[in-house]
Amino acid sequence: MTESKIYEMLGSYKIATPKFASFRIDETISVDFFPAVIKIESEKVVHKSDFGAVKLNISSNEELNAAKEEIISNIAAKGVKLDETDSFIVVEMLSGQELYVGLVDDEIFGKTIVFGKGGVFLEMYKDVCYIDIYADDEEIKRAIKLTKISRIFDGFRGFDFDIEMAVKFIKSVQNFAKANPDIVELDFNPVLLTKDGLKTVDARIKRGEARPEKLGTLRKNRPNFFQNERVAIIGASSDPTKVGYAIAKNSLTYKGDMFFVNAKGGELFGKELYTSVSKIEGDIDTAVITIPSKFVVETTKELIKKNIKNLIIISAGFKEVGDYDSERIIAELAKEHNFNVIGPNCLGYLNGQKELNLTFGIGGLRSGELALLSQSGAVLSALMDKAYDASVGFSHLISCGNMVDLDFAEMIDMLNTEDSCKYISVYAEGIQNGKEFLRAIRESKKKVYIFKTGKSAESKKAAFSHTGNLSGNYEMFKGLIESVGAKIEDNIEALLFNPLNEVNNILIVTNAGGPATILTDYIIDHGRKLYQLSKEEISALDAVLPSNWSKNNPVDIIGDAMADRYEATLDIVTKFENVDLIYLLVTPQYMTDELNIAKLCEREWGKKIYPILLGGHEMEEAKNYLRAKQKLFFKTLQSATSFL
Amino acid sequence: MTESKIYEMLGSYKIATPKFASFRIDETISVDFFPAVIKIESEKVVHKSDFGAVKLNISSNEELNAAKEEIISNIAAKGVKLDETDSFIVVEMLSGQELYVGLVDDEIFGKTIVFGKGGVFLEMYKDVCYIDIYADDEEIKRAIKLTKISRIFDGFRGFDFDIEMAVKFIKSVQNFAKANPDIVELDFNPVLLTKDGLKTVDARIKRGEARPEKLGTLRKNRPNFFQNERVAIIGASSDPTKVGYAIAKNSLTYKGDMFFVNAKGGELFGKELYTSVSKIEGDIDTAVITIPSKFVVETTKELIKKNIKNLIIISAGFKEVGDYDSERIIAELAKEHNFNVIGPNCLGYLNGQKELNLTFGIGGLRSGELALLSQSGAVLSALMDKAYDASVGFSHLISCGNMVDLDFAEMIDMLNTEDSCKYISVYAEGIQNGKEFLRAIRESKKKVYIFKTGKSAESKKAAFSHTGNLSGNYEMFKGLIESVGAKIEDNIEALLFNPLNEVNNILIVTNAGGPATILTDYIIDHGRKLYQLSKEEISALDAVLPSNWSKNNPVDIIGDAMADRYEATLDIVTKFENVDLIYLLVTPQYMTDELNIAKLCEREWGKKIYPILLGGHEMEEAKNYLRAKQKLFFKTLQSATSFL
Repeated sequence: MTESKIYEMLGSYKIATPKFASFRIDETISVDFFPAVIKIESEKVVHKSDFGAVKLNISSNEELNAAKEEIISNIAAKGVKLDETDSFIVVEMLSGQELYVGLVDDEIFGKTIVFGKGGVFLEMYKDVCYIDIYADDEEIKRAIKLTKISRIFDGFRGFDFDIEMAVKFIKSVQNFAKANPDIVELDFNPVLLTKDGLKTVDARIKRGEARPEKLGTLRKNRPNFFQNERVAIIGASSDPTKVGYAIAKNSLTYKGDMFFVNAKGGELFGKELYTSVSKIEGDIDTAVITIPSKFVVETTKELIKKNIKNLIIISAGFKEVGDYDSERIIAELAKEHNFNVIGPNCLGYLNGQKELNLTFGIGGLRSGELALLSQSGAVLSALMDKAYDASVGFSHLISCGNMVDLDFAEMIDMLNTEDSCKYISVYAEGIQNGKEFLRAIRESKKKVYIFKTGKSAESKKAAFSHTGNLSGNYEMFKGLIESVGAKIEDNIEALLFNPLNEVNNILIVTNAGGPATILTDYIIDHGRKLYQLSKEEISALDAVLPSNWSKNNPVDIIGDAMADRYEATLDIVTKFENVDLIYLLVTPQYMTDELNIAKLCEREWGKKIYPILLGGHEMEEAKNYLRAKQKLFFKTLQSATSFL
Repeated sequence: MTESKIYEMLGSYKIATPKFASFRIDETISVDFFPAVIKIESEKVVHKSDFGAVKLNISSNEELNAAKEEIISNIAAKGVKLDETDSFIVVEMLSGQELYVGLVDDEIFGKTIVFGKGGVFLEMYKDVCYIDIYADDEEIKRAIKLTKISRIFDGFRGFDFDIEMAVKFIKSVQNFAKANPDIVELDFNPVLLTKDGLKTVDARIKRGEARPEKLGTLRKNRPNFFQNERVAIIGASSDPTKVGYAIAKNSLTYKGDMFFVNAKGGELFGKELYTSVSKIEGDIDTAVITIPSKFVVETTKELIKKNIKNLIIISAGFKEVGDYDSERIIAELAKEHNFNVIGPNCLGYLNGQKELNLTFGIGGLRSGELALLSQSGAVLSALMDKAYDASVGFSHLISCGNMVDLDFAEMIDMLNTEDSCKYISVYAEGIQNGKEFLRAIRESKKKVYIFKTGKSAESKKAAFSHTGNLSGNYEMFKGLIESVGAKIEDNIEALLFNPLNEVNNILIVTNAGGPATILTDYIIDHGRKLYQLSKEEISALDAVLPSNWSKNNPVDIIGDAMADRYEATLDIVTKFENVDLIYLLVTPQYMTDELNIAKLCEREWGKKIYPILLGGHEMEEAKNYLRAKQKLFFKTLQSATSFL
């Protein structure tokens, strides 16, 4: 496509370009925009500059016509004869900050706009953001603000450009992309930021076969997964080495109707073991399957006769070992009979509010406000274990497994209808429907926290062999997710702690200055603040502390502090109204009575207190004490702050 | 200073500027460089642009003279009369990549050059590096390569600038700075990168009182601290609650001459307690003091009579509580009588080769190749503890305390004369003599690893109240240290593990795919590689693993792996020649026999194996087992990789 054709096409979508005009080769040139550039547009002249066929910085029509003649003779000198299929284009020469706007057709997220610093610095600084073609104004602005170049919209060094100009340009590109699905790649570099708005002065467009649009392709009118009334465990077993035993045991807290099924029959935990699903009277809305994979399709069909609504397939041995067929059949049955499937190859499901634990994790169960979705059973298991130790409770737990049916977007949609769920944490390895994922987070009334693996090429490979899912470009993932309003975590445990830890003012009580300094760095790195002590608060501490205490936060109560001094300090600082979190830092000094300091943490202080016990074996007694009491504590400064 | 004066001055130091010429106001202008700029140089015209006293982009002498007349009349129109003190400057108009070169007089590092991307992007991208004015060519290049803009010296997008041009310019600035100590700030922005080299087109210079030069100010001909033959412990005590007891006890491994001193007299560990230093026969080369601070100066004087060479003052109660006088007196005595002092307010000193442990840390002592210097006793204590658990041995340990005398540079110099020391790790809160610190690292034949606190303003404050030392600009610290060839760590434990862990090829054995994917990300993030399995190696594993194992590294041996499968895998992978490190990842699955897997780690496999036991309370038994056996293990993916 010639430059003038591209400009015309872009213009019809209100994508601003410089002023330009085309002229036949025998036509007298006359324009009203200067300075200008004149170039030949001819298929016979590929490298215009080599042919002397571009003239820059021209300031009158007279000079333009002279330049035109010069170009004609330059081309003739190269032995090329121009004819009536050729023409000249005269383009307004603009200047301004060089920006970049691009469009990619990502395998996960489909059509996505890339915006940032342009020119040669695009590659050097990679200062770009990612914008969904369905993003609204606010989302576009949120994305733009993730770049450093966005400071030019912010009064930086006297720049006074309005961000709305960028938004307007990007919206035009969104419309262009939606109207031309066959455009699979687009590079505007540079787009110049002028006082009249953004104008693209160089455009490269690639057409091709578009990936199918994924927005709106989810199943409609699904039953809500979380309405679990009559539940069956298929494969409940009296053999304690079997998963079916563990699940049956964990399920005993449930107060609703629960049925155990095992072909061998008999009894388990005082309940009948039905020899088949068909033997159960009435419908089953929720079932867990733990039997060998080869029996799963058949059992699913039996459950369909029981009007199954929600199916959790724990059994492994599907896609992950190359059996795609059974997964396909189950997915088709689910569609045809309108039921939901979680798994296969998963750890199970837990509904905290209903005290329904259909997982085989050993970790205990606490009800709470956090819904946790995990694409790795092992990660989920470790998190459940950690949550138990740290008294974090769940509204829902879903071990996603191979995700043959329900996807993240649908789970997030459904969780939004559950009052018991206040926050949603997602451990994701691969996303299948990126557009719906973004849509669901965009619409979610509950804040979403996401940890995503697959940053490096190597781990992408590992994730693929692991779940068979794709795990795209991490930078794009992070950019899109942040624009859409979720929080990206760089630490797995943050999925447990962050939703429950919206702390601002942190206070440190310590018996050593050095580690407190490092802890301070970590806290500030995570964007949190140290609480500022008032004069009165300092005086209050003066009364109980040695004269050489730090008189500041970190409250350094000096290396010879014993438990009584820690206690006197806590007595005072736990009453500081605006302190959200207290780190109790204990380092092994010769006389430190770690155990008694640890015991202080048992008390109800009315503030969140996180003890950090630094040092190895000599802290063991104190650590074991806190472990036995199921009190959360940390062993390194990094772990104590990693979830902030 | 006028622009022409600045250009002249810079020119005399071979700092390239554009061509320029000055003309009296009544003189006809004639230059041979175009395009050019003409400006008035007059004290009466401050804001040249407002006066219409600058004309750009002029291409002939004729136009220059016309522009000159126009400027004269513009200025006259503002009511200002020019006279013979005024002149015109004509400057060559250059174009090129905009770079930045600046000079600051840092309170820690003295005169330091800042180099990077210039123009408005200096502030936006902060893409700069820091260069000592004593840096040689190699160091300058190493610094430049820490910037992203350095890619223009690297063939990036067709740029073919030679990095030597930047080195040449920077060396001229170094000479300029050395010759003009009163220049305390300098801003060349932009410096244009032209095909003829770097040329500064805008210069701002600030003169003022220079900080005193610190290079070369260290004491000369000190005794080597590590030559410890006849040692005394002043304050050795039979009261087990006293520090003097702990040190005396730790010192018992020493085979040389050791004397205990305590005013009360008596006996301790079968040795005489001398009632005063003077009672000891012969000289003392090394002494530790643990008595109350008020007696320290007096005791130091007694030790001087014993020809003391090395003094470790553990006693606290000096600078950190406001007593600067005693420290000053001790420092003066040390200078006058040429002995070394470590402390006060420290944890002590350890010489691994001599089995001389003069610390009161409870952690055990292993001899090894690592020298560790720490400005925080608490951090050192935690690290010693960790080192004991992880079988890391030390050649030397120095708890620096208030650093009244010996500074880091001198310690690094001395360690370079010790064969037993192979690596040097430094935990630093504040550096006093930055120039000497850089010099010592530059000259060190042993690699230096540094962790520095004080990244945030808040932690700088904390560090100050803690040790009374300054802790400057972290970015500058990091940049200078890296240029000079040391490694900056962002994790404290890396000070122990990194020097001993120059691993390249890592292999992961796991019973779960998810965590292995995250672990892979962390490994790659730290710049390490996953080992690539060969076909033969895959076949070897095929023979012992279930068919659905990952056939790849991470070696996922599937969730139902018991200890026997881990063992069979280790039997094979520990024989892979080029594997430097194996992570043995164990996640709690329902049937996992963690304890037996942990027991595998006891065996001597001939490879470094780091077990990672994910999950909380259900892993306790395995963890306690490894703890009891003093085998290193990790509890999170992050801690297992943080020191890579």
